[in-house]
Amino acid sequence: MIKAVIFDLDDTIVDTTRLAEMARRNAIENMIRYGLPVDFDTAYKELVELINEYGSNFGKHFDYLLRRLDVQPDPKLIAAGIIAYHNTKLAYLRSVRGARRVLLELKRDGYKLAIVTDGDPIKQWEKILRLGLDEYFDQVFISDYLGVKKPHPKIYLKALKKLDVKPEEAVMVGDRLYSDIFGAKSVGMNTIWFRYGKYSNRELDYLDYADFVVNTLEEIPKIVRGLDDEEKERSDSKVHAD
Amino acid sequence: MIKAVIFDLDDTIVDTTRLAEMARRNAIENMIRYGLPVDFDTAYKELVELINEYGSNFGKHFDYLLRRLDVQPDPKLIAAGIIAYHNTKLAYLRSVRGARRVLLELKRDGYKLAIVTDGDPIKQWEKILRLGLDEYFDQVFISDYLGVKKPHPKIYLKALKKLDVKPEEAVMVGDRLYSDIFGAKSVGMNTIWFRYGKYSNRELDYLDYADFVVNTLEEIPKIVRGLDDEEKERSDSKVHAD
Repeated sequence: MIKAVIFDLDDTIVDTTRLAEMARRNAIENMIRYGLPVDFDTAYKELVELINEYGSNFGKHFDYLLRRLDVQPDPKLIAAGIIAYHNTKLAYLRSVRGARRVLLELKRDGYKLAIVTDGDPIKQWEKILRLGLDEYFDQVFISDYLGVKKPHPKIYLKALKKLDVKPEEAVMVGDRLYSDIFGAKSVGMNTIWFRYGKYSNRELDYLDYADFVVNTLEEIPKIVRGLDDEEKERSDSKVHAD
Repeated sequence: MIKAVIFDLDDTIVDTTRLAEMARRNAIENMIRYGLPVDFDTAYKELVELINEYGSNFGKHFDYLLRRLDVQPDPKLIAAGIIAYHNTKLAYLRSVRGARRVLLELKRDGYKLAIVTDGDPIKQWEKILRLGLDEYFDQVFISDYLGVKKPHPKIYLKALKKLDVKPEEAVMVGDRLYSDIFGAKSVGMNTIWFRYGKYSNRELDYLDYADFVVNTLEEIPKIVRGLDDEEKERSDSKVHAD
């Protein structure tokens, strides 16, 4: 019997990649508006490159962007980038299409709901609270806060224990085949790969660990109920076999 | 003849102290909403104390607040504080009453306008750009960017040189008697002390360095024009005396 559905956060519940791209584009636009002497495509490409190299939580993206573009340090230009970046992030933060509807449906059907995510705990909570999603979830597990990262089994085992369910009673939903699907499967959970965002064409070596593949979140409740029915059938036939 | 009017930024052009107080109050409210088990007055007092001790640009106010209140570290509570703090800062950022009107009036009368401010250059530019104030000013000088702090004469001399005016042709307007008024006077500028914000009852030892004291920005254009007339009278009487 399925008792809990656990979701990844970024690009599963929160529409992160799309938002980040909008924020970066708007940052470059605003820097150009305030005098950045570089064309949009060159500057944008450089910014994306540098974020890939230094990571998205690096605090000096726009300072380094100027260095890479051979532009003199200029706090006005950096401020212009930061303002547009933050304004966009605040104004356009959205849940993934269908997320709220699916969460409510699963809740109504009595499943426990949780989040298991990597990332900076405060930033992850900021997204959850800004979207008003905290009430939907019985538990939120953030790997950095626990000192391990997905796909480390520890975070999955901890979540299962806290939710008081067995691995086979839980379903993991996530966009990353390695951290989410391989990770959850390796402790014995059911897995649904949400083919979405920038990882949809990567990590395909781990595809075998996905029990199901979906292109929209709306497909999930039916799959979860299906797993329940399947198990019921199995135990029914067991009864008959006795 | 007066040619330039130079303004301090925080609590002279930007209504900083009032905004920070609102932001801090809302942060505490939101932390309590999400479960901080401490009453408002105790938590607020602790936050104000800690900001006084660690400075307003310290990055870990809400982490440290929990420590000081003997509350377990909790990224959700910290996120709740940060969200309310930033939302307030973005939503209620305002110029000081009368600032825009006064800047336009001085501009129309042909005076050069500048800012001379301490603080983090990017944060100061953020305020200027978010308020759309950049077009009003011919020059912006931020001490941290130049490696000195007010009242160091260097920043005032640099500003005067860049504006191409002599000290006696410039007026400094600011809320801090030490950094703004004593600093500007020590290089020979005219000074107007704007008695506003948290410094209005402090640093009174330096009161003698203020040529004028105002309680509203609206009084400034008349004083500046008065300085011009006074000088004109002096040179007129000189002519008569010859």
